[in-house]
Amino acid sequence: MTAVTDTTRNGVDTGKMFATLDLIKEQPELAEFQFRATNRWIAGAHNRSTIQGFYAAGGEDTSRTGAFELDAGEPAILLGTDTGPNPAEYLLHALAACLTTSIVYVAAARKVKLTSVESTLTGDMDVRGALGVDEKPRNGFERIDASFRVTGNAPEEQLREVVERARKRSAVYDMVTNGVPVAMEVTTH
Amino acid sequence: MTAVTDTTRNGVDTGKMFATLDLIKEQPELAEFQFRATNRWIAGAHNRSTIQGFYAAGGEDTSRTGAFELDAGEPAILLGTDTGPNPAEYLLHALAACLTTSIVYVAAARKVKLTSVESTLTGDMDVRGALGVDEKPRNGFERIDASFRVTGNAPEEQLREVVERARKRSAVYDMVTNGVPVAMEVTTH
Repeated sequence: MTAVTDTTRNGVDTGKMFATLDLIKEQPELAEFQFRATNRWIAGAHNRSTIQGFYAAGGEDTSRTGAFELDAGEPAILLGTDTGPNPAEYLLHALAACLTTSIVYVAAARKVKLTSVESTLTGDMDVRGALGVDEKPRNGFERIDASFRVTGNAPEEQLREVVERARKRSAVYDMVTNGVPVAMEVTTH
Repeated sequence: MTAVTDTTRNGVDTGKMFATLDLIKEQPELAEFQFRATNRWIAGAHNRSTIQGFYAAGGEDTSRTGAFELDAGEPAILLGTDTGPNPAEYLLHALAACLTTSIVYVAAARKVKLTSVESTLTGDMDVRGALGVDEKPRNGFERIDASFRVTGNAPEEQLREVVERARKRSAVYDMVTNGVPVAMEVTTH
């Protein structure tokens, strides 16, 4: 017997979502993923990352038919020519995108239909740190403020619970707030 | 008297760079910057950030004539339709881009002409954390490995010093390794 039901909510196939969760509970080794970016300097503040392959669920995932290309740059005041957002802005985007997707997925799992998710993130930086002018200010943002507006067919309290659960599960929120060990290897020929 | 010299190295105007550093040393209040991203959910794992304005050097910077738009997504195995790199991949790109630009700027300041900067970054993630299947694995990457190849007209030792100085000054490296406080505000109407 096959039960045919429309399990898609917020654009997320919740049937497939719960099947994936069940599978990973049964076979935790399938949960090992590796994501990658390859970057190449072009000129000045202009460099480009290529993103395509990744490892997932026990093998190399080859489902992406093409590569994503991301151009980074700096505005004139930071000696660039605006060839793309700057790296710190990309970090804000990564955080906004991860929190948003987490909100959408958690809502889908909880049968909450969302009508909108909008956010503005700001990061305050004393650039004396990154420019090496003063040892006191840190290089990165001193703080990030994220302002979210989330609407949907649920009472305010439930919408807030969705956001809170999403925050607790977001991969990039975890990394940006808690940090990640980075190992760097360099060759010069 | 005007000394006309070509101060551009690695695509970076070092004359302007040193003038900027001198100005910020004299007027540290000019070092307060704020970067921003505004994000909007589209459907499922698809959301888009818009990046344009920022605050810099005592006022709103309006030099960018257009906005950058960045689309995020997830691959099929994470319930998306590949509308863009995923948020964790964007974080790898932010880190690669920041380290690369830092290397290029430090090299320019030290009169090192670079011929290439290439890097591959990988992030290992046990997705049981982000999927909420298991409390033990963290949500984000357990570790990031960054492999850089840097070539230029300087001995290996000097190239390695450039990379080391760049690592110590990179805004995104600081944020990704040490974390940043994030304040989140939510409205639901």
